Amino acid sequence: MPDSTLLEAFPTPTDTPFVIEHIADEFTSVCPKTGHPDFGDVVLRYVPRSARDGGQCVELKALKLYYQSFRNEGIFYEAVTNQIRDDLVNLLNPAWLQIITHWRGRGGIRSTIRADFGDVPSEWRTA
Amino acid sequence: MPDSTLLEAFPTPTDTPFVIEHIADEFTSVCPKTGHPDFGDVVLRYVPRSARDGGQCVELKALKLYYQSFRNEGIFYEAVTNQIRDDLVNLLNPAWLQIITHWRGRGGIRSTIRADFGDVPSEWRTA
Amino acid sequence: MPDSTLLEAFPTPTDTPFVIEHIADEFTSVCPKTGHPDFGDVVLRYVPRSARDGGQCVELKALKLYYQSFRNEGIFYEAVTNQIRDDLVNLLNPAWLQIITHWRGRGGIRSTIRADFGDVPSEWRTA
Amino acid sequence: MPDSTLLEAFPTPTDTPFVIEHIADEFTSVCPKTGHPDFGDVVLRYVPRSARDGGQCVELKALKLYYQSFRNEGIFYEAVTNQIRDDLVNLLNPAWLQIITHWRGRGGIRSTIRADFGDVPSEWRTA
Amino acid sequence: MPDSTLLEAFPTPTDTPFVIEHIADEFTSVCPKTGHPDFGDVVLRYVPRSARDGGQCVELKALKLYYQSFRNEGIFYEAVTNQIRDDLVNLLNPAWLQIITHWRGRGGIRSTIRADFGDVPSEWRTA
Amino acid sequence: MPDSTLLEAFPTPTDTPFVIEHIADEFTSVCPKTGHPDFGDVVLRYVPRSARDGGQCVELKALKLYYQSFRNEGIFYEAVTNQIRDDLVNLLNPAWLQIITHWRGRGGIRSTIRADFGDVPSEWRTA
Amino acid sequence: MPDSTLLEAFPTPTDTPFVIEHIADEFTSVCPKTGHPDFGDVVLRYVPRSARDGGQCVELKALKLYYQSFRNEGIFYEAVTNQIRDDLVNLLNPAWLQIITHWRGRGGIRSTIRADFGDVPSEWRTA
Amino acid sequence: MPDSTLLEAFPTPTDTPFVIEHIADEFTSVCPKTGHPDFGDVVLRYVPRSARDGGQCVELKALKLYYQSFRNEGIFYEAVTNQIRDDLVNLLNPAWLQIITHWRGRGGIRSTIRADFGDVPSEWRTA
Amino acid sequence: MPDSTLLEAFPTPTDTPFVIEHIADEFTSVCPKTGHPDFGDVVLRYVPRSARDGGQCVELKALKLYYQSFRNEGIFYEAVTNQIRDDLVNLLNPAWLQIITHWRGRGGIRSTIRADFGDVPSEWRTA
Amino acid sequence: MPDSTLLEAFPTPTDTPFVIEHIADEFTSVCPKTGHPDFGDVVLRYVPRSARDGGQCVELKALKLYYQSFRNEGIFYEAVTNQIRDDLVNLLNPAWLQIITHWRGRGGIRSTIRADFGDVPSEWRTA
Repeated sequence: MPDSTLLEAFPTPTDTPFVIEHIADEFTSVCPKTGHPDFGDVVLRYVPRSARDGGQCVELKALKLYYQSFRNEGIFYEAVTNQIRDDLVNLLNPAWLQIITHWRGRGGIRSTIRADFGDVPSEWRTA
Repeated sequence: MPDSTLLEAFPTPTDTPFVIEHIADEFTSVCPKTGHPDFGDVVLRYVPRSARDGGQCVELKALKLYYQSFRNEGIFYEAVTNQIRDDLVNLLNPAWLQIITHWRGRGGIRSTIRADFGDVPSEWRTA
Repeated sequence: MPDSTLLEAFPTPTDTPFVIEHIADEFTSVCPKTGHPDFGDVVLRYVPRSARDGGQCVELKALKLYYQSFRNEGIFYEAVTNQIRDDLVNLLNPAWLQIITHWRGRGGIRSTIRADFGDVPSEWRTA
Repeated sequence: MPDSTLLEAFPTPTDTPFVIEHIADEFTSVCPKTGHPDFGDVVLRYVPRSARDGGQCVELKALKLYYQSFRNEGIFYEAVTNQIRDDLVNLLNPAWLQIITHWRGRGGIRSTIRADFGDVPSEWRTA
Repeated sequence: MPDSTLLEAFPTPTDTPFVIEHIADEFTSVCPKTGHPDFGDVVLRYVPRSARDGGQCVELKALKLYYQSFRNEGIFYEAVTNQIRDDLVNLLNPAWLQIITHWRGRGGIRSTIRADFGDVPSEWRTA
Repeated sequence: MPDSTLLEAFPTPTDTPFVIEHIADEFTSVCPKTGHPDFGDVVLRYVPRSARDGGQCVELKALKLYYQSFRNEGIFYEAVTNQIRDDLVNLLNPAWLQIITHWRGRGGIRSTIRADFGDVPSEWRTA
Repeated sequence: MPDSTLLEAFPTPTDTPFVIEHIADEFTSVCPKTGHPDFGDVVLRYVPRSARDGGQCVELKALKLYYQSFRNEGIFYEAVTNQIRDDLVNLLNPAWLQIITHWRGRGGIRSTIRADFGDVPSEWRTA
Repeated sequence: MPDSTLLEAFPTPTDTPFVIEHIADEFTSVCPKTGHPDFGDVVLRYVPRSARDGGQCVELKALKLYYQSFRNEGIFYEAVTNQIRDDLVNLLNPAWLQIITHWRGRGGIRSTIRADFGDVPSEWRTA
Repeated sequence: MPDSTLLEAFPTPTDTPFVIEHIADEFTSVCPKTGHPDFGDVVLRYVPRSARDGGQCVELKALKLYYQSFRNEGIFYEAVTNQIRDDLVNLLNPAWLQIITHWRGRGGIRSTIRADFGDVPSEWRTA
Repeated sequence: MPDSTLLEAFPTPTDTPFVIEHIADEFTSVCPKTGHPDFGDVVLRYVPRSARDGGQCVELKALKLYYQSFRNEGIFYEAVTNQIRDDLVNLLNPAWLQIITHWRGRGGIRSTIRADFGDVPSEWRTA
């Protein structure tokens, strides 16, 4: 089941703001209604706080294991997206953060869900 | 014929605004003038109101059945797009909502129709 | 329902063998098991017999109407493909003929069915 | 020769503003300098006035015939684009309207011409 | 774990040989060495025996459930491919059959495995 | 109207056989049934006879003018293809020659016609 | 060598502002350092002044010959881009004008240079 | 190891501001954690100060050698990006400058890092 | 330097012949002439001997480390390709084996080298 | 002008036959009729004779300079292709060799010319 204790962070290397984006192409969870697997990708974008303010970056291998912990969880698209946003905001306390999930077609309908935290710049506000 | 009673909604899981997009690739209706079938896709984008304000999300399988109810209806591109916008606004009472339909070529002309409800952010205002 | 009487033919214009291919991108029928619509495309390839042997070509608009007659028919992929092959062979009595149907994903599985008539050259024997 | 009397309009179905886009992929006219044919596509985008203000939409088949009337006309890219803009503004009296023509390469140079009417929103101001 | 009892077949509708191809885009199993998930797609191609010889076709929904039964199995690429080939040959006793699996990159290396049964025509012998 | 006297040839530069291919992307003629324009491309492939046998190559600008002479001709796909094949065979008396025409969709159906002369090698026998 | 006297202009056909874009795919000059040829494309975008203000458009064939005059010139990317901008501004005295050059990779590095004149709208300010 | 002394600059050729972009497709360094190589590309965008203010441009071959000096360095994505930004700002003292690195997938996750200097225009603020 | 002792093999799981393909997208070595890095990908295809004949498969992680051992080696394209072929044939003693290397452009020229062992089927003999 | 003395060869490293392919994307010469530049790419494929038979490979940088020597030569497509084939056969005396040139559109017609030497395997005989 989703396990946020798998997440790890390390201090940002600089006081200058910069943007980090990680795209996980191989996310899978289970539809709680039908029991069939869902497949999608997860885009994470954020700006860590500056080093002097204790800014943190997420560690990549830990992020991968955290995503894998959803593998057999029955959970809706909307809930997946909001939970990942909340877990990473708790971990990183970033300047801003954004989670976008894209889901492969089910019954001929493809879906995208986007959840933001903080003052995401306007240029990132299209999914 | 188009049947909005097929639509179902469920409460949004959060008070934080977030964006939902569903793209249906397999929409078909009938041209009322020629009787020939039209084929297209339908993009739905919206932000539900927050949970404490009674925000609602559209259920995916119900949305699919609603779209299928246009299958043998004689109806113009413009009317399809405006009716779907109206039916979903009635169902969801969202913060904002947008319907974009893309239609395959007929006589060498491809068409796109876009109908908005509420204050759609500027970043979504290109089809 | 599928109606082969909609098909029309016209005499081939030449005694020299030549290859004709028509790809219909907007085929739809209904799954007899679930009642949900299926979407696909249909590739027709054939060589008419020569003019002196009474060779015939299928008329394009009639072919379109024939394909549209499957719109509300509950019929499996395999049956659609074999029936179109049989109806066109009956109409055209060609040197050889081939029908390939490609179907959009259902439950994450895309399908292709190919049915041949006569001595289809080896270069056409990949779908 | 270009014949704007071929154009027809019908009343817009709603008081809510919405965007209509028609892309004609098969436009051809003749270069008045060399006599060789030019090939391109024509993008039309507009917002009709509201129904209560007598808003009008262009009829698709009539639009196709109007475009075909340029087939043997000797006319420069710039003049084609401005004339289509003017003819459609006269017909529709829209809230705003935009014509963009893309022309295939001639002597290794591809061209795009864009002519606007009224207050075209900024998101449409790239060709 | 992989469960071939989930597979179901139905009689082929014709005595004429024809080719069937199903591509499953969302296959996942687990690497037995690292415990990390593997993601890939599975191509199935076969020709059923003729109806008078008791030819059988695989049922699509059953095929999907069978593939899903590998979800949490620790199993190598080569073994997955050979097992699916064997299970489907046992079910269908086809004229010929072919399984091709494509696997997303692991450590910068993408892999394809192909296992054939019977006299697969040469045109299918590239992965 | 189609005018084969526009075609010009020049002697092949060598006794060694070689393959020449010209693809014209901007072919247009008129449907004799509907009066609407057809758009397509024309692929010409051939091997000239050797220089000592009086082999000839088609001149490119003349070929372009010849193709343009179909612009306002009402003529079916099949007839266009066979006529171009015949006119170029008459001009060039080649070792072998092949004409393939691809036509943009009409009523959702795209078409390809292929006419050969002489012993076209098997590797060219797919359209 | 680059020869701006090859450029020719003609009067703009309208008082309404409109945008003109010409993309030349086959630009080549010579690297002054290595003597090796450089290959790229040149994007020209501008708005002519209105007809009553003596607005001018560049003639396409003349533009092509002007670009060809760089063929054997030893000149850096940055200088090419600025010189073309200056020569065309001198010719056209436009409302605004923009030159963007894209250069194919040299030593694994691809380059883009952009030079503007006047108040180029913000929507054009990405290369 | 990364060696900023390899960088060289030359004076900008003009007082007019213009944008320069260099994309290096073949960047490689080493992951300090696993010892495995990382592969990516590096986008550099900047506007040099004007010639009268001593504006400088980076020399392309020197830039290539500088990038190559990271080949066997164990260094994280974030540190690579910030170091290149700092080294080039020191060299060029530009009006503004931006470094974006895109990294190929590791464990199914692709990453992008972006570091800016100065007042980067909003149109460049998406990676 | 290239180190074939890094390679490891495991017994093939079956007596039925099957095809294995591994594509490494991130190969790099050094040009012995210029000292600049070369980048490419390496395609390995082979059929292991049957299990009863002691057939062997190459282990994926070992293959990756073996490829990485070329990272700082000065070696020509042709030599890389032949050496990998020889090292893997020594390891696996396969029924047949094929190595194809694709190299990114150097001075505007992209290269492909293909080296075979044994009776590679004709369908694999295009690079 | 074309200068075959620029070509250089080096001994093949092995007695085992292998295939070499070099694709030059940036070829340019001049049309002898119009004086306008032609742009294309040149594909070279060959198998050197074995080392014990004195087999030779073409040196890449020399090949590039040889191709550059056509830059200002007025020469037809067919002559370019046959001359390169002849010059390289003279240099390398290969087992077999093939030159394919692809030319960008002129007047809407793209061309491909292919010239072979020796017994080119059938799998290479499509351009």
